[in-house]
Amino acid sequence: MTRQRLLEAAVACLAESGWAGSTVSVVAERAGVSRGAAQHHFPTREDLFTAAVEYVAEQRSTALRELPAQDRASVVAALVDLYTGPLFRAALHLWVAASNEPQLGSRVTELEARVGRETHRIAVQLLGADESRPGVRETIQGLLDMARGLGLANLLTDDGVRRERVVAQWTALVEGALR
Amino acid sequence: MTRQRLLEAAVACLAESGWAGSTVSVVAERAGVSRGAAQHHFPTREDLFTAAVEYVAEQRSTALRELPAQDRASVVAALVDLYTGPLFRAALHLWVAASNEPQLGSRVTELEARVGRETHRIAVQLLGADESRPGVRETIQGLLDMARGLGLANLLTDDGVRRERVVAQWTALVEGALR
Repeated sequence: MTRQRLLEAAVACLAESGWAGSTVSVVAERAGVSRGAAQHHFPTREDLFTAAVEYVAEQRSTALRELPAQDRASVVAALVDLYTGPLFRAALHLWVAASNEPQLGSRVTELEARVGRETHRIAVQLLGADESRPGVRETIQGLLDMARGLGLANLLTDDGVRRERVVAQWTALVEGALR
Repeated sequence: MTRQRLLEAAVACLAESGWAGSTVSVVAERAGVSRGAAQHHFPTREDLFTAAVEYVAEQRSTALRELPAQDRASVVAALVDLYTGPLFRAALHLWVAASNEPQLGSRVTELEARVGRETHRIAVQLLGADESRPGVRETIQGLLDMARGLGLANLLTDDGVRRERVVAQWTALVEGALR
């Protein structure tokens, strides 16, 4: 329970304040937990924030996997949504920080690979895609890359109107490729 | 000449050290320019780094616009390349910093809109796309979003092999949509 509160507070903190403004103390205070208790669960800043992004990513994956069967347009919309909320912002801050901080780099690289593989698996399943057919795997990878790029475009301004049109068109292209 | 040296050093510094490690002094030293001279050209840190990203983005746009006529696969490859080098890394650091720093936010938002519009115009021209046809505009927007997402995927590890396959498949899908 304490652990979960800390993880949720850590993602919110990272999303709002970035890596520079995110420390174990700040998160402990936000979660209403003593600094000692926070450090018992997460000895280092790197431990706390990588665990937090992983935890929230797993929650999102679980929610996605439990979606009822839907048409492909709804699936694509749900996948794109993965990259527009606080989790994406938090992950982006962690990712960018990791590109300059060696002690964070290898951990975030591993985390990203795990989360990326899982998201890909879920996308294949929800889209009912047959990856043994040529081009299908790359179609889905490119779709997820586009979703990540759309997330980035949404960072500073609300890009929702443009995004909706792009997603509609790319959904049609994906449908054609998966048929 | 001094101005240009400062701008190039600023992009390199931002790409390597991120926003936290990028100050006017650090860039002046890197460019072999006195701190006073640097501050004469760029009174604030925000001035220097937004001007630097804009300057390098304009150079890239000019180079792209001067490319000889090419097949669409080469054009898509050149567009994707925009998002994998030091300029993209520098812009990404600036962008992510802007999401938490109000004095940077509005300037980077404007800069991004200008560079984004220009990149879109160049893409339309190089791809010989007819945007009066339904879906064409959104196809190109999605392609540039995908390119940005691929740039992000390349931040921590060399994603070149996977990227090449994704780009080949999506080039085929985009060609179909533009035909």
